[in-house]
Amino acid sequence: MGNDNTDIPVTVIGLGLMGRALAGAFLKAGHPTTVWNRTTSKADHLVAEGARPAPTAGDALKAGSLTIICLTDYEAVREVLDACELDGTTLINLTSGSSAQAREAARWAERRGARYLDGAIMAVPPAIGTAEAVILHSGPRPDFAAHEPTLGALGTVTYLGEDPGLASLYDVAGLAMMWSVLNAWLQGTALLGTAGVDAAAYAPFAQQIATVVAGWLPGYAEQIDRGSFPAEVSALETDAGAMAHLIEESEAADVNTELPKLIKAMAERSIAAGHGAEQYPVLIDEFRNPRGA
Amino acid sequence: MGNDNTDIPVTVIGLGLMGRALAGAFLKAGHPTTVWNRTTSKADHLVAEGARPAPTAGDALKAGSLTIICLTDYEAVREVLDACELDGTTLINLTSGSSAQAREAARWAERRGARYLDGAIMAVPPAIGTAEAVILHSGPRPDFAAHEPTLGALGTVTYLGEDPGLASLYDVAGLAMMWSVLNAWLQGTALLGTAGVDAAAYAPFAQQIATVVAGWLPGYAEQIDRGSFPAEVSALETDAGAMAHLIEESEAADVNTELPKLIKAMAERSIAAGHGAEQYPVLIDEFRNPRGA
Ligand SMILES: NC(=O)c1ccc[n+]([C@@H]2O[C@H](COP(=O)([O-])OP(=O)(O)OC[C@H]3O[C@@H](n4cnc5c(N)ncnc54)[C@H](OP(=O)(O)O)[C@@H]3O)[C@@H](O)[C@H]2O)c1
Ligand SMILES: NC(=O)c1ccc[n+]([C@@H]2O[C@H](COP(=O)([O-])OP(=O)(O)OC[C@H]3O[C@@H](n4cnc5c(N)ncnc54)[C@H](OP(=O)(O)O)[C@@H]3O)[C@@H](O)[C@H]2O)c1
Repeated sequence: MGNDNTDIPVTVIGLGLMGRALAGAFLKAGHPTTVWNRTTSKADHLVAEGARPAPTAGDALKAGSLTIICLTDYEAVREVLDACELDGTTLINLTSGSSAQAREAARWAERRGARYLDGAIMAVPPAIGTAEAVILHSGPRPDFAAHEPTLGALGTVTYLGEDPGLASLYDVAGLAMMWSVLNAWLQGTALLGTAGVDAAAYAPFAQQIATVVAGWLPGYAEQIDRGSFPAEVSALETDAGAMAHLIEESEAADVNTELPKLIKAMAERSIAAGHGAEQYPVLIDEFRNPRGA
Repeated sequence: MGNDNTDIPVTVIGLGLMGRALAGAFLKAGHPTTVWNRTTSKADHLVAEGARPAPTAGDALKAGSLTIICLTDYEAVREVLDACELDGTTLINLTSGSSAQAREAARWAERRGARYLDGAIMAVPPAIGTAEAVILHSGPRPDFAAHEPTLGALGTVTYLGEDPGLASLYDVAGLAMMWSVLNAWLQGTALLGTAGVDAAAYAPFAQQIATVVAGWLPGYAEQIDRGSFPAEVSALETDAGAMAHLIEESEAADVNTELPKLIKAMAERSIAAGHGAEQYPVLIDEFRNPRGA
């Protein structure tokens, strides 16, 4: 935006809810934008705004110096690209899928002569084109670097590393954080609700705690990378005592205890394994353990 | 600190790790500080710094215009206070316990003529006396208001409401948020670790997501208080699809799936109850449900 790269031609393949938002953001940024969709009518509005419709996916690929692909799933991607000449193209696949699918698609596309980056969109379509839309990328760094200014029209673009599976992994890891913050807040809201505290009164407190604890993560990460967990501020055993209180309060208030009990069960296992005098991040061993099948 | 209330005499009963930190902070702020502990030698260091040792808990109570009590548990509190004249005293009980214990202690102390506030300390002893030490209070508002400037010597003091049980409830709710942020971060760290990403590389991303999501809570709380959950940004059904990906990635990486599976199970139940097209906070019904016994 405001760059002088806005004359770079781009292609968007797949004009569902998300694909239309992506193509719209490129158009708005001034890029010559070629589009293709199986159901051609979905291009109409974009064409009225200046997008060029390509008769086939193969033609669309030839028009852009990079091609964004955003379809339902990786099977649809394979189906669409199978019939196309990929040699010399640059593909940026923003279709949701697993890290294994991303790695396989990267190998497949590279064998066919394409440059391939995988991506994950952590945003809803209306946010595309604003800084709020976080779009993760992984794959060959030079390919990302070459196209980063162009991709910037879509939102906050981030590069994670060479392994094309990283975007999918960071995506689900980030979602796990999202659901966990929401669930902990709901647990507290339900508990406080039984004492007559409304959700609006409790929320700022929950927000503050989550923000403060999030600030500890970089420091705690160093403990994990060193593999050493001295109890600088508190020992896991102390936490376990307070976890029992959380369960008791939840039971006394007659609210759900599943989350409190899972929290305590994992800590207890780590204590049983001899880590009671160490600090919370020592629980990484429990999370690395393939349990829960 | 720097207030002209520092000539107000205070008492601290209980000089364990935490009680000594509390008394030390009062002394540092300039308050005439009377102390008592069952094992008298624990007062020695404080006395050398200017604290006045009282021969009995009853004498200690008479010396301060407010008395902080910080013992192992509520049974110890009852044992110590049983023999004392409480009429006309102001007790601020910072001993950890349940909301039910706090309410019972408040009734008991008030029957004996004391003013009673209950509190919960969300800090470790070395943080006491700094803004980082969050100390929650609940009970009669005028009593908190009267002593707030004095209590300010201990850290960031917060008033939650008249129900003396609130400090304990906010405390465990806040801890649930703390453990949940840490667990989600550990889940992501374990998952990314299998792709060769070290904890330090992943932590800033986890921090950012937690902070952003925490910022949604006040808005989401309005949905709960209205009891209406329109899918403004995404529907629970869409979340459930991504939860399946989190489980699949965790399984493929051979890391723990207990937390991902609990997240999905709760969402699935809400969807089964007919809420798939609503937004995430509709899950409050699941958290209010006394399940997990
Ligand atoms: N919407 C969001 O909030 C959001 C957020 C993050 C990520 N995503 C991801 O973005 C991707 C697209 O999502 P969306 O919301 O745009 O979905 P959508 O509205 O359902 O659109 C799906 C697109 O895929 C095309 N397609 C499916 N199967 C095909 C096939 N066999 N051959 C050719 N085209 C095929 C559809 O073409 P037709 O029009 O011809 O059916 C359509 O263009 C998904 O992977 C989704 O998970 C979406
Ligand atoms: N330390 C922390 O990080 C922390 C953080 C938040 C909240 N808290 C809470 O603060 C409270 C005190 O913790 P702490 O760390 O100071 O514990 P601590 O070091 O074990 O001290 C316990 C105190 O309670 C006294 N006590 C216990 N039973 C007694 C009885 N029957 N009669 C008279 N005195 C009795 C002990 O007296 P003696 O010296 O005679 O044994 C000592 O003064 C606890 O409720 C704890 O949960 C602590």
